[in-house]
Amino acid sequence: MKTSVFCAASIDGFIAKSDDGIEWLNPYEKDPHGFEEFFASLDAVVIGRRTFEVVLGFGGWFYTKPVFVLSSTLKNLKLPEGAVCELINAEPSEVLKQLEQRGFNHLYIDGGVTIQRFLRARLIDRMIITRVPILLGNGIPLFGSLPQEVQLKHVATRTYPTGLVQSEYEVAR
Amino acid sequence: MKTSVFCAASIDGFIAKSDDGIEWLNPYEKDPHGFEEFFASLDAVVIGRRTFEVVLGFGGWFYTKPVFVLSSTLKNLKLPEGAVCELINAEPSEVLKQLEQRGFNHLYIDGGVTIQRFLRARLIDRMIITRVPILLGNGIPLFGSLPQEVQLKHVATRTYPTGLVQSEYEVAR
Repeated sequence: MKTSVFCAASIDGFIAKSDDGIEWLNPYEKDPHGFEEFFASLDAVVIGRRTFEVVLGFGGWFYTKPVFVLSSTLKNLKLPEGAVCELINAEPSEVLKQLEQRGFNHLYIDGGVTIQRFLRARLIDRMIITRVPILLGNGIPLFGSLPQEVQLKHVATRTYPTGLVQSEYEVAR
Repeated sequence: MKTSVFCAASIDGFIAKSDDGIEWLNPYEKDPHGFEEFFASLDAVVIGRRTFEVVLGFGGWFYTKPVFVLSSTLKNLKLPEGAVCELINAEPSEVLKQLEQRGFNHLYIDGGVTIQRFLRARLIDRMIITRVPILLGNGIPLFGSLPQEVQLKHVATRTYPTGLVQSEYEVAR
């Protein structure tokens, strides 16, 4: 079982504005930076409830792999037509155990709180962080506090014409 | 007058641990990443009181350019022999005005709070951030809140054998 994070962050470490806004990413959408190739390598997606609601707000459903939504409060999901999506109410280690038993081998872990929970549990294997050349000043942080330092191993860094800088790290579990 | 930031930060955005510790940087000291060339291009250094005290704690004095310490509380400086260092109690814009009048053209702005104050005042021209492949989890952040977004222009990114990734940005004033 392998878990990967693939996300964009401002230079000051935010993945969205305080109101969940990601319109500051719009100028960079025309600058492909490997998301499709990354997504093709996955078996399933694990996101938090907040990210799920933001995605629903876009209208439509762009996930072409099964999606698992982590929530301790939602009882059922109102899904767009065609969405393959399930609720899970469990700790990260239990989530991985369940999904591994169901035959999933490579998970995409997404959403600020969810990424932080998996990092705290030391259950992330790889992080691909694309730095966007902007300081937002406030917003939803990619990282949160950790009980201990986590050493990363730099794998590669790629730069893109619009100024995106993407670094890939292996995370010591 | 030009102002530059040159600093190391963890992937989660800290420049020091909560106790000001930077021992996590030790493994990277053998990996030269342009600090000497950067320092040679400067006329003077502007640091905050806290950074000043951390530097004094190292013993000795490694600045070979005039240093200006920003503080609203210190009345005088206890300096190591040979240190060229002055106190300034002023807002960033006033600091730049005074130092420009005294003939300084390129300033190195350093220290978390000081960098944040100059960024908030939009008085930083260039940022060279060297990302260290570690998540500290807690500590003294490089960035703080800003009253508005600040657009950066990516100039160059360099990678180093130990996994350091250094990105240089121009800051829209």
